[in-house]
Amino acid sequence: MSELSIWTYDWVPPGPRGFVRDLRLRWACEEAGLNYTVRTIPFDGRETNHLEHQPFGQVPFLKDKEVEIFESGAGLLYLARKSEKLMPRDPVGEAQTIQWTLAALSSLEMVTVPWWFLKVSGGENDDLTGWMSTRLDQMEKVLSEREWLAADRFTVADLLMADVLRVTKIRSFGDRPASEAYIVRVTDRSAFKKARADQIAHFEAADQKRA
Amino acid sequence: MSELSIWTYDWVPPGPRGFVRDLRLRWACEEAGLNYTVRTIPFDGRETNHLEHQPFGQVPFLKDKEVEIFESGAGLLYLARKSEKLMPRDPVGEAQTIQWTLAALSSLEMVTVPWWFLKVSGGENDDLTGWMSTRLDQMEKVLSEREWLAADRFTVADLLMADVLRVTKIRSFGDRPASEAYIVRVTDRSAFKKARADQIAHFEAADQKRA
Repeated sequence: MSELSIWTYDWVPPGPRGFVRDLRLRWACEEAGLNYTVRTIPFDGRETNHLEHQPFGQVPFLKDKEVEIFESGAGLLYLARKSEKLMPRDPVGEAQTIQWTLAALSSLEMVTVPWWFLKVSGGENDDLTGWMSTRLDQMEKVLSEREWLAADRFTVADLLMADVLRVTKIRSFGDRPASEAYIVRVTDRSAFKKARADQIAHFEAADQKRA
Repeated sequence: MSELSIWTYDWVPPGPRGFVRDLRLRWACEEAGLNYTVRTIPFDGRETNHLEHQPFGQVPFLKDKEVEIFESGAGLLYLARKSEKLMPRDPVGEAQTIQWTLAALSSLEMVTVPWWFLKVSGGENDDLTGWMSTRLDQMEKVLSEREWLAADRFTVADLLMADVLRVTKIRSFGDRPASEAYIVRVTDRSAFKKARADQIAHFEAADQKRA
């Protein structure tokens, strides 16, 4: 058994399949050629049954020998330290990679996730939608001027930014061709396709046990 | 002149003084004993006048010789690599520090910042307030069981989490004594007090030039 394990739910409903954030860690391991196993905690009772591993009751978390780490962004930075394929080793390339990884979380997802939360709960808010639109415009400008976010090559920052933008379904917010081309370019990688297919198969297999 | 420079606005209105995020980087440098200079970009026209440094039109960013890095969280992780005072060097301690730094951004601030945004724009939302309350409860449980987030010592994760919680004014959301004691404990550090006083003095000095 591999020492590196990615922990996710044993099952989720069909809706979030292909989007649960263990996908980010699977994808990074596939890019880096790191061996890993996928292990599970119960979906039922998730709010309380694994708080010793994740105090917010969420997945994923990562174990690597004595290291245990939650937050998908933190897991990605941890894996990036293990493989140059995910992050360059020169100081400028590393700083750019960390910067854009954090930007995906703090400048994009900090707006897109609450936007989605309000939409699902029926409380869409025009000001928040406007804020998201501004951020998507700012990213469109960045992506119209470069192919990759950091160091002129694929890094873990692209993995995360593409995942954040993919989930947002930016097409519903207007015409942003550079962002759409970027999402297609990054998610066309074989490592993404394998990670996504593996996640969907993992949850589908659980349907039978649950039935 | 120091090689390390923290970039912030030349002026801000009184309201955000003591809260602008260059404070996080000043504080980290003070904790680590790193020499730094503070440099400025114009507050007026900030939405467009420094997009080559920060594509979202925000501060702070950090320069260190050939490295330039934005996102306060990324700047903190960059500084943490420079000083063991901000992050332990053993793999478990480092992973815990990165995990809790990312948790402050992605599990707390991803709820508290949009909550504040909606409050300011007059669109308070009960579901979002409920989500924030849950997250604050989860942090209260964590903080009732430990003094510091990672490695049984102060790290950059405490710096960031305390700053996030301090800004949220958690007192208005109910009785959370462990969280309140934590904020007091972390912000009682001399490095925080100096960073905060320096930031306020920096913006006050600019009032005269502007008058």
